[in-house]
Amino acid sequence: MGDSALFRERLSDYQGRVHAMLDRALPPTSEPPLRLHEAMRYAVLGGGKRVRAILAVATGESLGAEAECMEPAACAVEFIHAYSLVHDDLPCMDDDDLRRGVPTCHRAFGEATALLVGDALQALAFETLAHAPVSDSGELVRVLARASGSRGMAGGQAIDLESVGRTLTLDQLENMHLHKTGALIRASVRLGALCAGARDPEILDRLDEYARCIGLAFQIRDDILDIEGDTEVLGKTQGADVALDKPTYPSVLGLDASRAHAHALHERASEQLAPLGRDADFLLALSEFIVDRKS
Amino acid sequence: MGDSALFRERLSDYQGRVHAMLDRALPPTSEPPLRLHEAMRYAVLGGGKRVRAILAVATGESLGAEAECMEPAACAVEFIHAYSLVHDDLPCMDDDDLRRGVPTCHRAFGEATALLVGDALQALAFETLAHAPVSDSGELVRVLARASGSRGMAGGQAIDLESVGRTLTLDQLENMHLHKTGALIRASVRLGALCAGARDPEILDRLDEYARCIGLAFQIRDDILDIEGDTEVLGKTQGADVALDKPTYPSVLGLDASRAHAHALHERASEQLAPLGRDADFLLALSEFIVDRKS
Repeated sequence: MGDSALFRERLSDYQGRVHAMLDRALPPTSEPPLRLHEAMRYAVLGGGKRVRAILAVATGESLGAEAECMEPAACAVEFIHAYSLVHDDLPCMDDDDLRRGVPTCHRAFGEATALLVGDALQALAFETLAHAPVSDSGELVRVLARASGSRGMAGGQAIDLESVGRTLTLDQLENMHLHKTGALIRASVRLGALCAGARDPEILDRLDEYARCIGLAFQIRDDILDIEGDTEVLGKTQGADVALDKPTYPSVLGLDASRAHAHALHERASEQLAPLGRDADFLLALSEFIVDRKS
Repeated sequence: MGDSALFRERLSDYQGRVHAMLDRALPPTSEPPLRLHEAMRYAVLGGGKRVRAILAVATGESLGAEAECMEPAACAVEFIHAYSLVHDDLPCMDDDDLRRGVPTCHRAFGEATALLVGDALQALAFETLAHAPVSDSGELVRVLARASGSRGMAGGQAIDLESVGRTLTLDQLENMHLHKTGALIRASVRLGALCAGARDPEILDRLDEYARCIGLAFQIRDDILDIEGDTEVLGKTQGADVALDKPTYPSVLGLDASRAHAHALHERASEQLAPLGRDADFLLALSEFIVDRKS
């Protein structure tokens, strides 16, 4: 159902459900501190593809669980993602003015508030996740915290900082992305599976490999879009990575080989889902969407 | 045992044990990303009174638990505290060059790395806490996350931002500090009690009130030290709050009434500990230390 109307409809349905979940989990703007809560909602509810939250929900559903079981995990991964974007956009990092077609959080609310928005969203992620209806929510927290911290996403950002202006090998580039974006995508899938009560090591390993592949494919597509995308469709500044002299897949492999690599990763991701049969149709289509998306 | 040699010896012993715990819980500098891990250790291990970690351990010990039970909680509250200092020192917040007598994290490692240090320390706090040897570590995570987020410490920072240059009432000032520093101090005591298996609501409530009082007293003492302290003894710039036109207890109450208020809070804190008898001697002495400290 990759590019079909059915997939688009299900994706849009998931996005709407995730938006409602996030809206419920965020503090209301009527609760003080008003400006901080307003800025947190601005940073989270302003759009986005919701890939991570949808992965958590769809993975759990593919294993037979109800969406409610995955709601805390879905919100938690999205809060972590949102906080990382807010901090990543700050002047001391990428210094971006535009995100999803609107001013970045620090452009709209000031740097100090944006810093606190990120900090508070991270705390909210763990608070929300620790309410998950499972027997051991501590296990979920350990998975997400490791994926977010210095051995995961934040570590990937640090590797990224060290890599600016350097020539990386493909292995080094993949290592960076496995941390920077891959760790949270893998955590999203694993949390979805754990919330669904999955315990079969083979299924968990296959889902993890699926997530690893789509995480890398997602990044390759991002790098390609940074070169050939259109600022208006992207909702962020086209060519930003190139301007910052950041190593990318196209700069290491070339454009054609980057596209081929993304499609090979999609193939490998698809194979992992075989034992789940039709129940994994949406996860399969999501992988296809990731390597073909236009924004 | 307030100012006695015995108290000083126990405090110093606790500080040594906490330092060893933090050292164990932090990633080694030999593990990549090297610079991030080096900076995280710099931010955490560079000193500090360790009041929050000691509160967690001492509270648990006063209830009969072994220090090991509280080790994850002690590290977690100290990591949250350390991350908040790193972010608070950034140019977009207080723009401080000096912390504990040495360059602040961003002065030593750059702003981008300091931002990531704070982010990664917050994740490490929750990862560490979720390893606590209790039946429901999710409960601990909820306590710490709420105390750290927009309804706790980060919210207090936001209130602080909104208060610069304004005249606050005593109630408004207390509300700010109950969030900014009080929430994490209360969480430290509560986590210590929960790790010790405390379930008696009266004891939990009394310990919470003890923590509320010493948290406020701690802040009042901080404000007083900012006026009459000495930059060399403080290890940070004396007069910084006044220079930033931040509302303080002395600016609202005057110096003498601020001192009297701190001592009244210490009295009230002491009363809460009565049912614990001699087991709470150290907690009692810690409260006295907080209102009398010179740095």
